[in-house]
Amino acid sequence: MRRLEMSDAFALVLRRHREGKAFSQEKLAEKADLHPTYVGMLERCLRNPTLNVTKKLAQGLGMPLSKLIAEAETIQQKSNSRK
Amino acid sequence: MRRLEMSDAFALVLRRHREGKAFSQEKLAEKADLHPTYVGMLERCLRNPTLNVTKKLAQGLGMPLSKLIAEAETIQQKSNSRK
Repeated sequence: MRRLEMSDAFALVLRRHREGKAFSQEKLAEKADLHPTYVGMLERCLRNPTLNVTKKLAQGLGMPLSKLIAEAETIQQKSNSRK
Repeated sequence: MRRLEMSDAFALVLRRHREGKAFSQEKLAEKADLHPTYVGMLERCLRNPTLNVTKKLAQGLGMPLSKLIAEAETIQQKSNSRK
């Protein structure tokens, strides 16, 4: 299994919180001022977003970016310590 | 004054911690496996780094990325609330 990158872990966290708020990808994209296709690609781990894009997503979810990143770091650490 | 972007706030936090550890830009670049010129451009707010690059920088500083992001969010919020 390949090493989990930070962008992969962030994708998991993003999807979890989007679904937790019952937002569609389109709804989150609209709130974050991003293209729905781009949100879909992010969630499928096909993009390594820039810092400013991650901030827009956090704002779209109404959450501090640092909280999303902390969760992503935990996931990444757990996943990579098993390899 | 223009709005402070997340990448600008991150640049300030990066420089603060790099200097706090008495690392040159070259030293941090080596630890983070990045080009020294790129680290210099980041610190001058000329780049919006990807999430994976910010993680490499945090690892180079030996700090959780979430801590750097939390500090950057505080700076950004304070700066933009004054505008």
